[in-house]
Amino acid sequence: MNFIGQHILSVDQFDRASIEEVFRVADNMIPYALRQRVTRVLEGAILGNMFFEPSTRTRVSFGCAWNLLGGEVRETTGIKASALAKGESFYDTARVLSGYSDLIVMRHEKMGSVAEFAAASRVPVINGGDGANEHPSQALLDLYTISRELTDQGKAIDGMRIALVGDLRFGRAVHSLCKLLGIYRNISFSLISPEALRLPSSYIESLRSAGHTVVESSDMASGLQQADIVYVTRTQEERFESADEAQRYKGLLRLNQAVYTQYCEPNTVIMHPLPRDTRAEANELDNDLNDNPNLAIFRQTDNGVLIRMALFALILNVADQIDATSRPVNWYTAKRF
Amino acid sequence: MNFIGQHILSVDQFDRASIEEVFRVADNMIPYALRQRVTRVLEGAILGNMFFEPSTRTRVSFGCAWNLLGGEVRETTGIKASALAKGESFYDTARVLSGYSDLIVMRHEKMGSVAEFAAASRVPVINGGDGANEHPSQALLDLYTISRELTDQGKAIDGMRIALVGDLRFGRAVHSLCKLLGIYRNISFSLISPEALRLPSSYIESLRSAGHTVVESSDMASGLQQADIVYVTRTQEERFESADEAQRYKGLLRLNQAVYTQYCEPNTVIMHPLPRDTRAEANELDNDLNDNPNLAIFRQTDNGVLIRMALFALILNVADQIDATSRPVNWYTAKRF
Amino acid sequence: MNFIGQHILSVDQFDRASIEEVFRVADNMIPYALRQRVTRVLEGAILGNMFFEPSTRTRVSFGCAWNLLGGEVRETTGIKASALAKGESFYDTARVLSGYSDLIVMRHEKMGSVAEFAAASRVPVINGGDGANEHPSQALLDLYTISRELTDQGKAIDGMRIALVGDLRFGRAVHSLCKLLGIYRNISFSLISPEALRLPSSYIESLRSAGHTVVESSDMASGLQQADIVYVTRTQEERFESADEAQRYKGLLRLNQAVYTQYCEPNTVIMHPLPRDTRAEANELDNDLNDNPNLAIFRQTDNGVLIRMALFALILNVADQIDATSRPVNWYTAKRF
Repeated sequence: MNFIGQHILSVDQFDRASIEEVFRVADNMIPYALRQRVTRVLEGAILGNMFFEPSTRTRVSFGCAWNLLGGEVRETTGIKASALAKGESFYDTARVLSGYSDLIVMRHEKMGSVAEFAAASRVPVINGGDGANEHPSQALLDLYTISRELTDQGKAIDGMRIALVGDLRFGRAVHSLCKLLGIYRNISFSLISPEALRLPSSYIESLRSAGHTVVESSDMASGLQQADIVYVTRTQEERFESADEAQRYKGLLRLNQAVYTQYCEPNTVIMHPLPRDTRAEANELDNDLNDNPNLAIFRQTDNGVLIRMALFALILNVADQIDATSRPVNWYTAKRF
Repeated sequence: MNFIGQHILSVDQFDRASIEEVFRVADNMIPYALRQRVTRVLEGAILGNMFFEPSTRTRVSFGCAWNLLGGEVRETTGIKASALAKGESFYDTARVLSGYSDLIVMRHEKMGSVAEFAAASRVPVINGGDGANEHPSQALLDLYTISRELTDQGKAIDGMRIALVGDLRFGRAVHSLCKLLGIYRNISFSLISPEALRLPSSYIESLRSAGHTVVESSDMASGLQQADIVYVTRTQEERFESADEAQRYKGLLRLNQAVYTQYCEPNTVIMHPLPRDTRAEANELDNDLNDNPNLAIFRQTDNGVLIRMALFALILNVADQIDATSRPVNWYTAKRF
Repeated sequence: MNFIGQHILSVDQFDRASIEEVFRVADNMIPYALRQRVTRVLEGAILGNMFFEPSTRTRVSFGCAWNLLGGEVRETTGIKASALAKGESFYDTARVLSGYSDLIVMRHEKMGSVAEFAAASRVPVINGGDGANEHPSQALLDLYTISRELTDQGKAIDGMRIALVGDLRFGRAVHSLCKLLGIYRNISFSLISPEALRLPSSYIESLRSAGHTVVESSDMASGLQQADIVYVTRTQEERFESADEAQRYKGLLRLNQAVYTQYCEPNTVIMHPLPRDTRAEANELDNDLNDNPNLAIFRQTDNGVLIRMALFALILNVADQIDATSRPVNWYTAKRF
């Protein structure tokens, strides 16, 4: 895949070579994200960070990634005041907003909305989430995290063992991750979910027909064993027909230090797409894991910045200019990164 | 008019020479808005983009124009959390906020609020819309679009023929445009509106006493013929006493490709201040015109960036420094601009 | 106090030497805030301006201070759309957001929230206000204003006379200011408030035991005399049990030009933490004082930018690099600053 000038709308656009290209560029971004060096490669460029469905974390992550490349961000954080709410078409909104920026990130609750917007946009568009459908940079940062964590342990994605835990029926992050993992070879999937929230069978069939192993279960005891990665998700209550129905499943499957110690191998990496709901009725990933060095959830969000920087750099064709425009950071930077 | 350090509150401030100066500077901004070149002339300057009445399009357009000159933007997008909502006067708000920036763009639903704010501001203020009253950069971008479109056809504003269609009673954009056009010579105005939404007679009298021709009608058939420009507007429902009353007029006058083909000359330029309401009950400017090369509505919004850059550059006295601080763009830029 | 890499959570962190260091750096910032010179010392650095409780003035002031040092700002302006509202812990929010920026300013209505956030943050955090608790940069800017105003009159904080007027029971700004003033020597405090809104006795005892003089009264006539500074506050209605109760106290104590002329010495400086409520039922600081040169309320907000620039520069250890990276401003700047 040639990234220059392309929209990024779906994980379906990626093959193994293009994933590896993104990861290679993301690796190069580490000194900038760690505030060891500053680059100004996109000085003068403008990101349109158009979040018609609010999401603080994702919005700030994209904006920060753009700023770290030297560019400016113009943004919107809701739909109420927008022309879309007054009957404007996605076509018109896209034609107008694409005159204001060099690249647009768009999030909107309506499935397919970002693709419709991108079709009319005069600049590249990255899907920042369109309802239950796609959020490709999340899937890429999850996969990138898996890759980095496994590499640290001398392992690789090919041949690894992953346990996916929780609401596998509605979890957009899990679905996209399964699609990307399906590209690799010989992965063992352990799917752990309540009966009613199992991964849709189309995903399971795709994985099996690509040569992967898939085992389903509904309790942690059997499912967690022999996993390199445990990927826990929250119950996607906004996708259920009623809040009451969602409530039935919240907190059914929980990972805490005791469960981890009892069932997991010592270096099993713990992931979660965040936010984790720490309220008593949910609490699917317990705070008592916070000091467990295998808890990779904040390395995931850190990696999100690298992946987004890489996508920006590839789409705008500046990946090869980053270092040439760079200099050391001249201010205090926290060692804790 | 000497722009340096001035507030821009009303189209009444402009004479023909000052309009032409704005347009000349706007022309110089084209390579920057097209992302062929980058300028950093306002590097270090701060725009206070104070939208106490939300408007995504106008807010982002002003912010983008400032960023394209190299400056930073601080902004607010509503009134609920502001001190204004807690009983603070416009005087206090202006004294405070003008300590934070080099120039302020302000939008507020209350008529006259921006002038009141500007009187207390310590930095130049541009009116980004104060209710039914004024939105001078919209009028300037409309006029600039008319000028560029006509020039492309070997015509000029002097002597041109324009049809204004829709809610001419409440349309702020139409009123301001009429004031600016009145400065020029020998224009034929065709005013097409429901009987109850006619252009206020004071505007008609001004135009006639300045030597222009004005003809009124209430249907497209007669009114659209022999126009160089057709300027369509939406029903300004927020200005009516009730939504029901506004509903009576929505969609009464519609321009679509069939109407265009039947009544318009082949190169008649189509304009609209946007947003256009594409819902079935409104739809005053049909999507079937989207491929008509005479549809200039997105050139209008693009031109808005140029006009706002020009106003910033003139007020802050940097129009002559733009090119000296510029360099070629080093990233991929879409050809579709 | 060594500022490098520190959180600023409370005025209790400051001793006299560290206050004087902040003020010295703030003085150096004057040419930049006045737009005489531009510095780019933080070019490439990102501020996370996280206002989970909205506050236009404070948010824009911090953002502007950061921009004036050359850095970029990513921000949030409410809590509704944030993960915090979906059950995320302050710990998680802090771990995530501190991966996106070099320094975070946080405001949240919950007392103690910012300290909890800072404990988990990987970058320095400044408390931008946590409910009734602390807002240290406000206290510093108040003290800095007192210092500059007195210096202009050939006086000093040591030995000065200050009248504090209004809701002294709930006023966070007054409490913090009393703590900072307590560090100095031999100050005369005149506390003027309704009986029910007196300064909590713990503050009075602290001041007295540090050798200061404290006199309480409930009317302006006696209290205002012989003051170098009059610091007026609004009734903090959000801290009362009911709006009705707060209503009883609004407007009980008012300063206007007539009162000023009758009771104050000719050069008594008038301060207020703003916003002032100009509605008839409140109006504790009358607009008829706007032309009184001793009205320092807008010098206070201007000084806020200097203090915030100084805190940023000290925490990130760039105070000594400011001038080296600077150049003259090249655009029009209003004389009225």
